[in-house]
Amino acid sequence: MAYRTVDSQTTKLDNFDMAAYLAERKVIVEQALDRSIAVTYPETIYEAMRYSLMAGGKRLRPILTLAACELLGGSIEVAMPTACAMEMIHTMSLIHDDLPAMDNDDFRRGKPTNHKVYGEDMAILAGDGLLAYAFEYIADRTPSPDHTTAKQVLRVIAHLGHAVAATGLVGGQVVDLECEGKTDTTAETLTFIHMHKTAALLEACVSCGAILAGATAIDLQRLSTYANNIGLAFQIIDDILDITATAEQLGKTAGKDLAAQKVTYPSLWGIPTSQAKAQALVEEANAQLDPYGNAAMPLKAIANFITARNN
Amino acid sequence: MAYRTVDSQTTKLDNFDMAAYLAERKVIVEQALDRSIAVTYPETIYEAMRYSLMAGGKRLRPILTLAACELLGGSIEVAMPTACAMEMIHTMSLIHDDLPAMDNDDFRRGKPTNHKVYGEDMAILAGDGLLAYAFEYIADRTPSPDHTTAKQVLRVIAHLGHAVAATGLVGGQVVDLECEGKTDTTAETLTFIHMHKTAALLEACVSCGAILAGATAIDLQRLSTYANNIGLAFQIIDDILDITATAEQLGKTAGKDLAAQKVTYPSLWGIPTSQAKAQALVEEANAQLDPYGNAAMPLKAIANFITARNN
Repeated sequence: MAYRTVDSQTTKLDNFDMAAYLAERKVIVEQALDRSIAVTYPETIYEAMRYSLMAGGKRLRPILTLAACELLGGSIEVAMPTACAMEMIHTMSLIHDDLPAMDNDDFRRGKPTNHKVYGEDMAILAGDGLLAYAFEYIADRTPSPDHTTAKQVLRVIAHLGHAVAATGLVGGQVVDLECEGKTDTTAETLTFIHMHKTAALLEACVSCGAILAGATAIDLQRLSTYANNIGLAFQIIDDILDITATAEQLGKTAGKDLAAQKVTYPSLWGIPTSQAKAQALVEEANAQLDPYGNAAMPLKAIANFITARNN
Repeated sequence: MAYRTVDSQTTKLDNFDMAAYLAERKVIVEQALDRSIAVTYPETIYEAMRYSLMAGGKRLRPILTLAACELLGGSIEVAMPTACAMEMIHTMSLIHDDLPAMDNDDFRRGKPTNHKVYGEDMAILAGDGLLAYAFEYIADRTPSPDHTTAKQVLRVIAHLGHAVAATGLVGGQVVDLECEGKTDTTAETLTFIHMHKTAALLEACVSCGAILAGATAIDLQRLSTYANNIGLAFQIIDDILDITATAEQLGKTAGKDLAAQKVTYPSLWGIPTSQAKAQALVEEANAQLDPYGNAAMPLKAIANFITARNN
């Protein structure tokens, strides 16, 4: 798995084995996710939730939460329930987005979408169940909160709720739906959509991991800028891949934006300019992390991975 | 508005003006709900959430949260954000239950259902938005938590998540959907549905209000039994009203259970036995509150109101 080294960085990423890091983190995250939901009566709903939660993916969100917590000296144990909650909420958003009333997608990560397997009613409920459980999981499972950490966990829950509600992910999806079929969507509106639909949850992943490690206001400002930048870069690359990658590479339908005549960054700016903007966003993201020296290598490598990925 | 006095109670409810109490509480709850969500860009989603949140109803859930908190010496101010969150989550469950893929209802509280006004996509997102915001609202708005209260607020969030996820409301709705069109549903399955679909959130309303006031384990046991009993009684009365009340009284379609050949308590036991069971549940609920003397009058009156109501 290739990743780019960026000249403007003060730390060398060449010695950091990104592929091994991501693979190892994916394993521990998936083990934790697997333990987070057991199948019990009524089995259908637990199976439906697990079907999408355990369907693979890069697990970038929980990996970001763990990495941000570790950057500031926190432990994986403290961050893991929040990391799992991030993936539950990301999964919920995919299940609901794929519904016939929304994007009407039949495939996700190379498998039939949740409603194609369990029906629309179960898919709606599986999403609702994952969303509610995510908050319970953080509140209930974050290791024995003392005075300080109980307040930090409340901040995490408030931050995450804000990133998911109409002020975040839901609001982004609403504007995305409202722009469907419109050919006059502006770059500003497009940025609103991506900052809310994609970047808000990635920002919450990073900020919540940092909050659990006792981040200062300056830490949070730096990490929040880092995360918002990689969130926007992530979406620009997604839009480029929708044009350039095959369905096999994506595990979902390719060329959907073109078919839907949807305005995207590449349709506004062309592919080379979009690619350059994504790269600039990642470089700016990584510059925010310079004060942390070598400890920031994983987060910098993740940022570089986002622009270099091909699925 | 009539309510019954129950002989087995040690406190007299005759001097307690239930109608005035409920009316006054409904006003302060609706003022708080009105302030909880402002309309901003993208307006459609905020309007969709407010349309269902402000559509009226008895506001029994938030009133229960406030009453349980006050019973144990807590303040309305501390309980109000949680009380509002309960109504947001109740509203979310109604919006999603009414969807075409679920119960496919066109009317709710005498008004067109959310998806009939805003479309299915917005209705799904309005529910998601309310659910995520409810948790943010508790975490962010419960007045300045000190050492103890930060932990109590985390317990409230965990308890509420559990009551809404597959272990609660969502699980109850799943079994309810699975029983559709079946004529051999047992009383045990029916009780599972109602204990999860209806009682779990009512139990969370009461228990979370109590937790915020520093409830002991014994307080919680008594209040939890009270709430589960009135939850089950509430549903039995609902099933009876589906047969005996008019659509005008209910503000929604009447006779739906019969039309759907759905097994209900009245279809299993007949109306008089069902009415008697509901009454017995309420008496047992109120007996749990005897140790609290006059302070329990509002909760006892709410329990009596549930069996005496006609909509």
